Amino acid sequence: MPADAIKRSYIFDAIKNVFQKFGYQPIETPALENLSTLLGKYGEEGDRLLFRILNSGDFFSDVSEKDLFERNLNSLSLKICEKGLRYDLTVPFARFVAQHRGEISFPFKRYQIQPVWRADRPQQGRYREFYQCDADVVGSNSLLNEAELLQIIAEVFKTLNIRVVIKLNNRKILSGIADIIGHSDKITDITVAIDKLEKTGIEKVNEELRSKGLTVEAIRALQPVMELSGSNDEKLNYLYDLFANSQTGREGVTEIRTILSYAELLNISVPIELDLTLARGLNYYTGAIIEVKALDVQIGSICGGGRYDNLTGIFGLPDVSGVGISFGADRIFDVMSRTDVFPTVAKQTTQVLFVNFGKTEERHVLTLLSKVREAGINAEIFPDSAKLKKQLAYANSKYIPYVAMTGENEISQSIICLRNMATGEQKNVTLDEMIKILELC
Amino acid sequence: MPADAIKRSYIFDAIKNVFQKFGYQPIETPALENLSTLLGKYGEEGDRLLFRILNSGDFFSDVSEKDLFERNLNSLSLKICEKGLRYDLTVPFARFVAQHRGEISFPFKRYQIQPVWRADRPQQGRYREFYQCDADVVGSNSLLNEAELLQIIAEVFKTLNIRVVIKLNNRKILSGIADIIGHSDKITDITVAIDKLEKTGIEKVNEELRSKGLTVEAIRALQPVMELSGSNDEKLNYLYDLFANSQTGREGVTEIRTILSYAELLNISVPIELDLTLARGLNYYTGAIIEVKALDVQIGSICGGGRYDNLTGIFGLPDVSGVGISFGADRIFDVMSRTDVFPTVAKQTTQVLFVNFGKTEERHVLTLLSKVREAGINAEIFPDSAKLKKQLAYANSKYIPYVAMTGENEISQSIICLRNMATGEQKNVTLDEMIKILELC
Repeated sequence: MPADAIKRSYIFDAIKNVFQKFGYQPIETPALENLSTLLGKYGEEGDRLLFRILNSGDFFSDVSEKDLFERNLNSLSLKICEKGLRYDLTVPFARFVAQHRGEISFPFKRYQIQPVWRADRPQQGRYREFYQCDADVVGSNSLLNEAELLQIIAEVFKTLNIRVVIKLNNRKILSGIADIIGHSDKITDITVAIDKLEKTGIEKVNEELRSKGLTVEAIRALQPVMELSGSNDEKLNYLYDLFANSQTGREGVTEIRTILSYAELLNISVPIELDLTLARGLNYYTGAIIEVKALDVQIGSICGGGRYDNLTGIFGLPDVSGVGISFGADRIFDVMSRTDVFPTVAKQTTQVLFVNFGKTEERHVLTLLSKVREAGINAEIFPDSAKLKKQLAYANSKYIPYVAMTGENEISQSIICLRNMATGEQKNVTLDEMIKILELC
Repeated sequence: MPADAIKRSYIFDAIKNVFQKFGYQPIETPALENLSTLLGKYGEEGDRLLFRILNSGDFFSDVSEKDLFERNLNSLSLKICEKGLRYDLTVPFARFVAQHRGEISFPFKRYQIQPVWRADRPQQGRYREFYQCDADVVGSNSLLNEAELLQIIAEVFKTLNIRVVIKLNNRKILSGIADIIGHSDKITDITVAIDKLEKTGIEKVNEELRSKGLTVEAIRALQPVMELSGSNDEKLNYLYDLFANSQTGREGVTEIRTILSYAELLNISVPIELDLTLARGLNYYTGAIIEVKALDVQIGSICGGGRYDNLTGIFGLPDVSGVGISFGADRIFDVMSRTDVFPTVAKQTTQVLFVNFGKTEERHVLTLLSKVREAGINAEIFPDSAKLKKQLAYANSKYIPYVAMTGENEISQSIICLRNMATGEQKNVTLDEMIKILELC
């Protein structure tokens, strides 16, 4: 419905403007990608959730009698479908960078706001079609990029009037922890378990770690890390000492220190918190891991990202490091609805409706209308001379703040009777006075 | 690529702003519609060009052995695919209106800017995924709507700097012509033939009419209509007299007269031409037929539309009249590229790049950068302290108009050396002076 579409475009515009302010440029990729580009990039679950497009024409031409008999869905679907719908913006972006490597000058800062599709059972807060809003820089190792992305996050949520905390972690710190407790091989098990700390408590986490085969000593060594508290500096100092024998761990600490010192310099207005339990996209991120939570609504992460070191490798372009973030427009929409922080939609809808009193009055209104629109004001006339009550109801249904009435009387005096729809107050004004009032609304 | 994406979004924004100025509100519909909604709405060709989505899970569960062996593609595709991709914006809009009839207050003025998909062989100017930009009013018979749509067309192309002519016809005039020559039954054959008048000449048209079974008398009676010239008024007067025995024909003339008189009142700045050969969407439109041609590029229609009287009927909501137009964003893009009327992209890309001279200078630049962005200027710093030449090349590749250099020297004097990338001119300015220069660029 229009009211929702207007709110959504408000969110997109806010994000887009901040991306542009930081030098990110838009690209768009097609909704349809080759399945060979998409398959195997999102895990088994992802492959299952891909929407596949039936080939045009004789889609059965490659299918043998044997295929039909065996009803092997996997192999059949590959023979009758070549294309699939975009599942996220990251893989198409990697394909795009690899494909256009000759035309792109690096570092390449791009943003992309497009829908993605997942064949999931639709449920509260989960849709089959939803928008992602991504910004990534590829081709630069500088940690300044991470810091600027944090600033982008802060600016977007300040604009949208959402209070947030940014959680920060680093893949290298997680590796360091695994190193230190002597289980470099079990980094995934460890992080998956730690990730549940807040939800299930330390006892359950330890239980899970035992079940995954961690030694008693390792679990004991992990306790102070899980219980780590204090300021970011205190945590980082502790970890730096802890990682005396893990170069990777120390690198992670140094990276976070650098990012935080940039953040201080940039005067980022949002709290940034080192959170060791943060392990999103572990198979994917190689450096910083970023996640944003709303403070006033419990809804999970509303923005996330991190650094990845070899995204374009699978498409034949190795050694391109990148870092990016992705805003979840639908969850942001939910947060703003629940906290009621959407601004009045006036600017994006009609600001004034001219009542239609009949053919004669209509002619007069049309000339007024042109002048009002020339002044940059969104305005309309009710197309038929319906009953006044009906026309006012129409204005209300569209949240139009003002209604202009020019009957015989007003026309002869060159005035307009302007009704404020919120208060019901009416007053006679000139065209110029009306324009001034509308410019402020 | 970004340069194209920026230009495209310039076109979309221009169209969107005009739609909003006239009281149209946005809606969005899902990319995936039920095939039952789409099939049979676009003719046989359309059914063939629909992208179908393979059902999730066991897509073969409804398929019998018999189906498989017969390889009946039509029936098979219906059993393995329930959804299809949006083919245009009109049918989903009709479905939307019928579905939400209880929540919508009429007249309902909506615009919609979304991609559509067609399984066509891609070729010059024809894409498998392309954007449509539609505005429609449903639930009002007033011809004021038609006139305002003409004004929207004029304003959009004025904003985009494209010279156009609007061609106008009316389905009722075409019916009147068929009535008058005694072939009401052959209106489609007649209009299909007349449509080719400009391309093939009158002889070929007459030949086609003969082959379709029109009598010699009928073809003779048609000649003066096809040769009709003069001003709109002259043509309309001639037709009015001609339609002495066709009430429908006279209604068509009166409708066009009303629309043109509104257009005059609205001071529409684009030539509007009555064109009897215009027959687009004949099976569809019931009143006005509108088409827009660029004057400076031969590319076919870049916008079109008309009035339809029963669009939502197939979805169970009869007797809702509507009128709408659709802008072809891709052709508009082509016209603007060929006539070179895109404005400089400066406002939508980075306005100034700060050179990165190293860690010390970087700290200083970051504070400047925040202030510049706070002033609403799109700005960035090169993330690494690469060679100056490389950083300048980066600015050029992104069409960044200014580069700011602050080395040790400039920092100590609190100045910035600002380079105009177009002219190569460099001058020392203060931060405030720089912001003033950038605000104008």
